[in-house]
Amino acid sequence: MAVLLAGHLRYDWSKPKDPANDHLIFSKGHASPLVYAMFRAAGVIDDAELLTFRKFGSNLQGHPTPILPWVDVATGSLGQGMPIAVGMAVAAKRLWNAPFHIWTLVGDSESAEGSIWEGFDLGGHEGATNVTPIIDVNRLGQRGPTELEWDTDAYAARIEAFGWEALVVDGHDLAEVDEALSSARDAERPTAIVARTVKGKGVSFLEDKPGWHGKTLDPEQTKQALAEIGDEPSRSFETPKPPRWSPPAAVTKPLQLKAYTEPVATRKAYGDALAALCASRGNVVALDAEVSNSTHAEEVNKVAPERFFEMYIAEQKMVAAAVGMQVIGLVPFASTFAAFFTRAYDFIRMGAISQANIRLAGSHAGVSIGEDGPSQMALEDLAMMRALHGSTVLYPSDGNQTAKLVAAMADRDGIVYMRTTRANTPILYGPNEEFPIGGSRVVRGGGADDQVTVIAAGITLHESVKAADALAKNGVKVRVIDLYSVKPIDSKTLWAAVVATGGRVVVVEDHWPEGGIGEAVLAAFSGAQMKGALRWKHLAPREMPGSGKPAELLHAAGIDADCIEQAVRALI
Amino acid sequence: MAVLLAGHLRYDWSKPKDPANDHLIFSKGHASPLVYAMFRAAGVIDDAELLTFRKFGSNLQGHPTPILPWVDVATGSLGQGMPIAVGMAVAAKRLWNAPFHIWTLVGDSESAEGSIWEGFDLGGHEGATNVTPIIDVNRLGQRGPTELEWDTDAYAARIEAFGWEALVVDGHDLAEVDEALSSARDAERPTAIVARTVKGKGVSFLEDKPGWHGKTLDPEQTKQALAEIGDEPSRSFETPKPPRWSPPAAVTKPLQLKAYTEPVATRKAYGDALAALCASRGNVVALDAEVSNSTHAEEVNKVAPERFFEMYIAEQKMVAAAVGMQVIGLVPFASTFAAFFTRAYDFIRMGAISQANIRLAGSHAGVSIGEDGPSQMALEDLAMMRALHGSTVLYPSDGNQTAKLVAAMADRDGIVYMRTTRANTPILYGPNEEFPIGGSRVVRGGGADDQVTVIAAGITLHESVKAADALAKNGVKVRVIDLYSVKPIDSKTLWAAVVATGGRVVVVEDHWPEGGIGEAVLAAFSGAQMKGALRWKHLAPREMPGSGKPAELLHAAGIDADCIEQAVRALI
Repeated sequence: MAVLLAGHLRYDWSKPKDPANDHLIFSKGHASPLVYAMFRAAGVIDDAELLTFRKFGSNLQGHPTPILPWVDVATGSLGQGMPIAVGMAVAAKRLWNAPFHIWTLVGDSESAEGSIWEGFDLGGHEGATNVTPIIDVNRLGQRGPTELEWDTDAYAARIEAFGWEALVVDGHDLAEVDEALSSARDAERPTAIVARTVKGKGVSFLEDKPGWHGKTLDPEQTKQALAEIGDEPSRSFETPKPPRWSPPAAVTKPLQLKAYTEPVATRKAYGDALAALCASRGNVVALDAEVSNSTHAEEVNKVAPERFFEMYIAEQKMVAAAVGMQVIGLVPFASTFAAFFTRAYDFIRMGAISQANIRLAGSHAGVSIGEDGPSQMALEDLAMMRALHGSTVLYPSDGNQTAKLVAAMADRDGIVYMRTTRANTPILYGPNEEFPIGGSRVVRGGGADDQVTVIAAGITLHESVKAADALAKNGVKVRVIDLYSVKPIDSKTLWAAVVATGGRVVVVEDHWPEGGIGEAVLAAFSGAQMKGALRWKHLAPREMPGSGKPAELLHAAGIDADCIEQAVRALI
Repeated sequence: MAVLLAGHLRYDWSKPKDPANDHLIFSKGHASPLVYAMFRAAGVIDDAELLTFRKFGSNLQGHPTPILPWVDVATGSLGQGMPIAVGMAVAAKRLWNAPFHIWTLVGDSESAEGSIWEGFDLGGHEGATNVTPIIDVNRLGQRGPTELEWDTDAYAARIEAFGWEALVVDGHDLAEVDEALSSARDAERPTAIVARTVKGKGVSFLEDKPGWHGKTLDPEQTKQALAEIGDEPSRSFETPKPPRWSPPAAVTKPLQLKAYTEPVATRKAYGDALAALCASRGNVVALDAEVSNSTHAEEVNKVAPERFFEMYIAEQKMVAAAVGMQVIGLVPFASTFAAFFTRAYDFIRMGAISQANIRLAGSHAGVSIGEDGPSQMALEDLAMMRALHGSTVLYPSDGNQTAKLVAAMADRDGIVYMRTTRANTPILYGPNEEFPIGGSRVVRGGGADDQVTVIAAGITLHESVKAADALAKNGVKVRVIDLYSVKPIDSKTLWAAVVATGGRVVVVEDHWPEGGIGEAVLAAFSGAQMKGALRWKHLAPREMPGSGKPAELLHAAGIDADCIEQAVRALI
């Protein structure tokens, strides 16, 4: 890292947002003392700040986060920084042929994470010559030897099998490291550096010894260590500067969303709207995990094929790449089946800590997908996505609403998730209606004589409307609320409805009972300090579904119009 | 698959539970028509049942699940069956040198999932010669060509780099396949088969054509297809039988749990109890993701090192292996930092569909871990684990309670999760107390004059006790409930407390506000049909935490004793 900083990392330390800067991502985030020491050497923090390490209120946290302007993304959950770096590189090269280079320090232990190999797979396939992973093969993990110890040949063989060149070096031979960093930057094939290192090198009681992970030295040990390695005063030094460069201005054109009058699947409306966004804004990019014909993200290929990134069936890589792409100013939308975002939950969680602005769209939600069976049915995605700091969770029910919400996602910060439905659903709204995030819509009832409130979204909203219309014919007045914004939630409208309907509430959702719409509504009520009795029915799947027709499965799960009608009747 | 079934899969189709049977796992679960056709050929289902495929109520779901006795695990989320198969193989070989062989059909598309390489890594490292992955390289994914198309050399190079031998065959040359299956079974090194195949082989309008994923033929197309490939009537045939074998009986000895009188971390009590379980029951196994010195699972090494499985830093592989091991009758406990189970959420979700009985223990929950910062703090694990069908979520607060709950986990079906705490916490309970799953404990108050109910678990229970004791000195009576069983939840005790304290409730948890204890309690209340006003305070972290001392972070998150005391006072 000293050689990298002194001679290879082209970075204007006074302008961390300069788009021409190289990037440095510590995939092994637990090496935070090293990256902070680099910042000290670069002169952007001083000794006093360095000594706040891991203290309350300090920006120098246990693992690096973008609270520091020189840190692109939070790391510390292993195997993530590297695929993030590769994703960033792929976009920077394909869209701009950008002059900056991306360096990522990778731990040997974390190479056990499959996501590291997803990263190598992506870089090899896309010819990412603008990123250099540097594997620190120090042989020791947190609790003992790593799997491959110092078998640098094994690392090299794996890296090469994924389409890269591997330069094996002695990580303590500065000239050799210098040469490898130059070669890697200039290489015509994706190139990684495998550096054999010795943990605690130069200090007799630390060198290659287990049991020191995350431990500090006592004063006596410190004295001895400094005596052994030479107590050179810390100093700053000149570092290479980036060239003058900025990415070409992204085209902008008026956004032209499709208007729907006939039933359409919200996933199709998502694809259409994403394509419209791509046509309108040159910085919007789409990422697919090889299901773009199902999520309809493939529509992007018709208008901006260069901004469509195929990640194949590797959801972790897809989310990692999206996080990397937003670092360099792109506006990523990543889509797959909603169920398969569970595969990337750790990456999404870390994205929140990274203050990343990424948009995720999950199709094929719930039992309503039908024949494919439970492995393809997202039934926990709302719980998963709600339980993230600062997240937004949207669940549209018709084409026009979907289009508007997709457009809103582009300008929304944080982790922004949209859940879409497989089946065609009727049109409920006109193309010029607005759907602010955090809002809701009353789609049936709304008068003072409503008897029961029914809260739903997406597929169950249509079932609720059917139930309300059937009940209306029998003189039962139901207020149906479209909770298209599950988080943030429109507590005010919900609470007003509960009060108006004497505490009678039915919530119906195509999601396990835990952590979804039902609990979101209860939390919203509790914030309003429930002042009277609540008469509550929560309709949600409670048994493991199988295959079947969507209508059969909705009925079996107790969430179709018939079941809603029964629940309403039971409350009055 | 025909060659495998006819000559290599040693399986007593009349006794699917025979422990000597070979195992066949379709990692590419979408090839369900093929595996069902094999069952038909083996004579265990008939044509009528075959024609129920994907219909409501049929066991022949869109993707295979263990509803069928010949299916070990549910697949359909890609990249999972293969590491499950390898995990099963590693245990079967190490513990029993079992004679059965494990075969797994892997899609070429799904080899993009990093978890496939985690599986190869595990098998290579452990010398798993008793499992044979067969990669079906048919060149076509759901939406077009795969990344590597027919580059079987690239597949072979990757497989070999992970320590396996790769046999490349023409998947349509039956003799070559036969030879490869024999070689793989008898090989002295882990061996995989890379089969070059042509999708739709033999039918002119299907062969190597994209656009047929998940589609059926119309009657005219069916006629033409049968004319081209030859309309042979379906038939059953004799298949190889397994030898007579069963695993050695597992030793059982009385369980001797440690008794704690001094403060201890629940993670340490977990490790102690797991070791005690391993000493007591020979079928209990422990899996670690290279943090066993932190989770304390390393204690198992002292009593049963052969049943301690090091999975290195690869949480997906760890959960997959646990699922595989429970198929063959073992009782797996897998542990890592609670935050890192997010990495394996898709595997855990599929585990629920697989009807798998696995026990997961996540340490270092919440902001209370302190200096390491947010990447290491589980703040969404309760939401994630609650939102699984049939799951159990436990969150003990002291050493003796932890020990009893760990013992109970061994006999509990489904996905059973325990959340543990990093810091030492005081002892609240005696070593002979019982903690039934689904129960709770009133640890302060309980009389008719309690003014406020405080509900907590784990680290926040101790803060609640401190607050209650301080309030008691000032004459304020608080009922503190230890919600050690978050799911199932003890609605009765909770509701009784709410009624007794006039609807005044404080819930305090070290977890994001969504999907955790607060919402679990609200859901429990709503089930009881809240009959009066609820005066509610939900204390939970609401801003992204940083590093600091545990006490500083608990206070900053608004969940320490001071904050609880304030919340109680605000309600009275």
